[in-house]
Amino acid sequence: MDGPSLEVVPLGGLGEFGMHMMAFAVDDSIIVIDCGVLFPEQELLGVDIVVPDIAYLLENREKVRAIILTHGHEDHIGALPFVLPYMNVPVYGSPFTLALVRRKLEDHALLDESTLREIHPDDRIEIGPFTVDAIAVTHSIVDSLALAIRTPVGLIVHTGDFKIDHSPIDGVQFDLARFAACGREGVLALFSDSTNAGRSGYTPSERAVEDRLDAIFRTAPGRIAVTCFTSSIPRIQIIADAAGRHGRKLAFLGRRMLANTEAARQLGSLKLPPEGVIRPREIAAEPRDAVCVVVSGCQGEPMSAMARVALDQHKDLTLEAGDTVVLSSRMIPGNEPAIMRMMDHLYRRRVHVVYPDGATPPVHVSGHASAEELKLMMMLTRPRFFIPIHGTYGHLHRHARLAEDTGAVRDTVLVAETGDVVRIEPDRIAITGKAPVGRVLIDQGSLEEVTDIVVRDRRHISEDGIVLPVIVINKHSGELERQPEMVFRGMTVDEGDPLIDECRDLVTGTIAESSIEERGDWAVIKEKIRRALKRYISRRLSKRPLILPVIMEI
Amino acid sequence: MDGPSLEVVPLGGLGEFGMHMMAFAVDDSIIVIDCGVLFPEQELLGVDIVVPDIAYLLENREKVRAIILTHGHEDHIGALPFVLPYMNVPVYGSPFTLALVRRKLEDHALLDESTLREIHPDDRIEIGPFTVDAIAVTHSIVDSLALAIRTPVGLIVHTGDFKIDHSPIDGVQFDLARFAACGREGVLALFSDSTNAGRSGYTPSERAVEDRLDAIFRTAPGRIAVTCFTSSIPRIQIIADAAGRHGRKLAFLGRRMLANTEAARQLGSLKLPPEGVIRPREIAAEPRDAVCVVVSGCQGEPMSAMARVALDQHKDLTLEAGDTVVLSSRMIPGNEPAIMRMMDHLYRRRVHVVYPDGATPPVHVSGHASAEELKLMMMLTRPRFFIPIHGTYGHLHRHARLAEDTGAVRDTVLVAETGDVVRIEPDRIAITGKAPVGRVLIDQGSLEEVTDIVVRDRRHISEDGIVLPVIVINKHSGELERQPEMVFRGMTVDEGDPLIDECRDLVTGTIAESSIEERGDWAVIKEKIRRALKRYISRRLSKRPLILPVIMEI
Repeated sequence: MDGPSLEVVPLGGLGEFGMHMMAFAVDDSIIVIDCGVLFPEQELLGVDIVVPDIAYLLENREKVRAIILTHGHEDHIGALPFVLPYMNVPVYGSPFTLALVRRKLEDHALLDESTLREIHPDDRIEIGPFTVDAIAVTHSIVDSLALAIRTPVGLIVHTGDFKIDHSPIDGVQFDLARFAACGREGVLALFSDSTNAGRSGYTPSERAVEDRLDAIFRTAPGRIAVTCFTSSIPRIQIIADAAGRHGRKLAFLGRRMLANTEAARQLGSLKLPPEGVIRPREIAAEPRDAVCVVVSGCQGEPMSAMARVALDQHKDLTLEAGDTVVLSSRMIPGNEPAIMRMMDHLYRRRVHVVYPDGATPPVHVSGHASAEELKLMMMLTRPRFFIPIHGTYGHLHRHARLAEDTGAVRDTVLVAETGDVVRIEPDRIAITGKAPVGRVLIDQGSLEEVTDIVVRDRRHISEDGIVLPVIVINKHSGELERQPEMVFRGMTVDEGDPLIDECRDLVTGTIAESSIEERGDWAVIKEKIRRALKRYISRRLSKRPLILPVIMEI
Repeated sequence: MDGPSLEVVPLGGLGEFGMHMMAFAVDDSIIVIDCGVLFPEQELLGVDIVVPDIAYLLENREKVRAIILTHGHEDHIGALPFVLPYMNVPVYGSPFTLALVRRKLEDHALLDESTLREIHPDDRIEIGPFTVDAIAVTHSIVDSLALAIRTPVGLIVHTGDFKIDHSPIDGVQFDLARFAACGREGVLALFSDSTNAGRSGYTPSERAVEDRLDAIFRTAPGRIAVTCFTSSIPRIQIIADAAGRHGRKLAFLGRRMLANTEAARQLGSLKLPPEGVIRPREIAAEPRDAVCVVVSGCQGEPMSAMARVALDQHKDLTLEAGDTVVLSSRMIPGNEPAIMRMMDHLYRRRVHVVYPDGATPPVHVSGHASAEELKLMMMLTRPRFFIPIHGTYGHLHRHARLAEDTGAVRDTVLVAETGDVVRIEPDRIAITGKAPVGRVLIDQGSLEEVTDIVVRDRRHISEDGIVLPVIVINKHSGELERQPEMVFRGMTVDEGDPLIDECRDLVTGTIAESSIEERGDWAVIKEKIRRALKRYISRRLSKRPLILPVIMEI
């Protein structure tokens, strides 16, 4: 007869950046750890966001007991609004994580019917055969948790995302003792964050950026705009403190930046002097050397607040010679060209740009553990089995090699990828099959109609049709080199249908009303055209085709 | 009355990476410095290569006297075969530069009618009102030159690409004294390489990689494959020397790698022990620990030798657990995702991969001057006017700020972009207008028909039509999620034309015969489909449309 076994199925995040989601199944019970979106990519697929295909969970819907969130980053929580409608299970998370989730579900009119359960470090929750303990870890966002999961096969540790920061900004310490206690008890399997497995040494404390920001604030003559991830509350606290010390009022720009900082403020995770914060439209009235604006869009996302500021297209913030922009975030691989173009736009108006160029003190530090911290995690927990998680295959591979080098893993190091079914028994681990996995493309409505969502998964990809506007543009003059081509597929648009000319005019008009700088930045013009056509076709045909602009820069 | 003046027109390379080409015009004479292609980009535009639009030169065709090449990198010489047919002027260059040019022109059946003139350091050439002196500089390729150009308005210095390497592998020293002599004589304008203007300090000597390569060769148990730029002759010399010291036979893989190393060997720039070099097909017979293969494709280009080796699709080289791949080149921004995917393919077969991760001693050093060297160049030449060249706007901007910081520039620092007409008079510099510039897309035939070239410039872009195959593929399973869509535009292909089904079958077949790993790498599958369709449509319709595969990974 079979003994107890645990089936672990990564639905995303093992072999790709983001879209973290992992199912733990014992008999008739499944718990899901995290539920995230894919990080923005160069190849945007013509859609707003990408989430994991949950076919595996749908096949086992009645078994799914809960979703447990390790922290509030988009790549860990962003897919919730697209998963909960299919399985309304309780969602567990720490206060700030749930604050972000709450707003997200509210936007999608899902909050009322959802069950959110707050957990805190050292809390224990019982879910069917699983007993889950929350452990405090440090990361670039507040309220991050690792999970110790007791299962019939043994104790599993899932680190979530972490680094080991001994001087965290919010004072919540990384709980070394709890991991050590797990190790003493005996860890069957450790699932640990691989993001920085390729980086040697230790990741500096978040406090490492304080000196650099202080130096910038001390000397910057004009306006200061700092862009960072909107959930990086500790970083935003450092920026706010620097602004306060140097007599600058603080403003936030970007919808998500405003919402996240407000949520953190309400929870006490972000401490702002009430009189020190002004609204976006009050920026213009402040003396240039008395304001600091924290702006969303650090990855050069085409329509983000920072991208619009760089192109001088934001109504609340204009920058000019003598002003300073600080990019206080890493450049995600693949996003460098977009970020570099954004910097170029700023340089053209002679704005001073500080970015993570390797100089010390750094203007950004990572929130993920480097090699020595990863080894420390292994040595504390001394697992029998080790499965690296979170990263491309290269990250997982390097983390696996690190594990082999330490000798801390008592039995097997296993590199699994998204879709691999990992079967764990008390004395055995193996990949025993493949689960149906993939990516689901989500197109959201405009801000006014967020609930109007088009989900394109493997089964529905062809139903709404495709529109391919083909645009040939001169990079240097910004002029169209010929009339845009409009290609419709999977929609009944006949040759000669006036819709074709109307769409073409819309594309031509969108380009004409853009500045030459915008026209020279294909990512920006592509996104503007996609949004304009999406709005128009939705209104005109009540259809939501996939819109994939093809831009040729001549 | 007007005094003498010089018009400088950058036709590429100022505000973009690569495509270097700059016209210097005095009265009825124009000389052109360099004639390069654009560096490969993520957004491949569905064509093989991209060259500058030479409308400005065509408008002044009778004035163009010569093209002078600073060195043999593709971004400085690659456009010659597409420019010389329009203006058969003498081409000046150093021996290795001309060796590369000669082969390129031979491939395009242009060699016989071309006039190539060899120049060496300290040579002087007179071209109309221009007197041009060649100055030896160090760079990542041998035989690199800077140019001192005497014009009726004054002395102009154009650095080409350079770093200041005091221990060059080939023993040809950077000629500090000549630059100093120019400075004493009085430099009116300095045009200087901005590639590394954002990097502080000094770029290490090429010799810095010797120790690291030596350490790798000392310990690697299996095959060693090193990938680097095919023109990096000094680097290849270091690799060859390490192979020799550690008893490994040397092989070269990739058409251009074989051709370039052969050219360098014939010129004496690359010294290889004749008995130490084997042919690609002899690799398999050698013991695994007795061979080192130098492979082209360091940027993860989809069909390059290295990409095919990584996917286990190369007939002459297979790698397995215990073998080592060394990426001895920088990752050009935007290429990281492709390179990381290539590394992932290698990791999956448990190949050890060494790449430039910041560890020292480095496995790659740059060929471009860092901030301190750039300042040294300014201090040596003490120019009246300074114009940063080579790089995105950000690079040019940072170089301009460096110049302002040194105070070495006696009058004006001018940031110009591609297409700006820069007018220089003995006491004045200004941007006075815009020249017609842009990008020309070039589609080459297959290897057997290299002279069958389709040039798509601003005037001809619409003539050949466009084919858009739309493919929806599951990243994890590698399966097609539905039949490919075939969209034809600007070609007379009626609905129901059997060509549509034939093309669709060709796409389906190309995907079916690819490995799952290939299918999961959209850059690879995109390029395979583009090539297959190009060949087929060219044969079937004698047409050469632009082929832009649209891949959606679900």
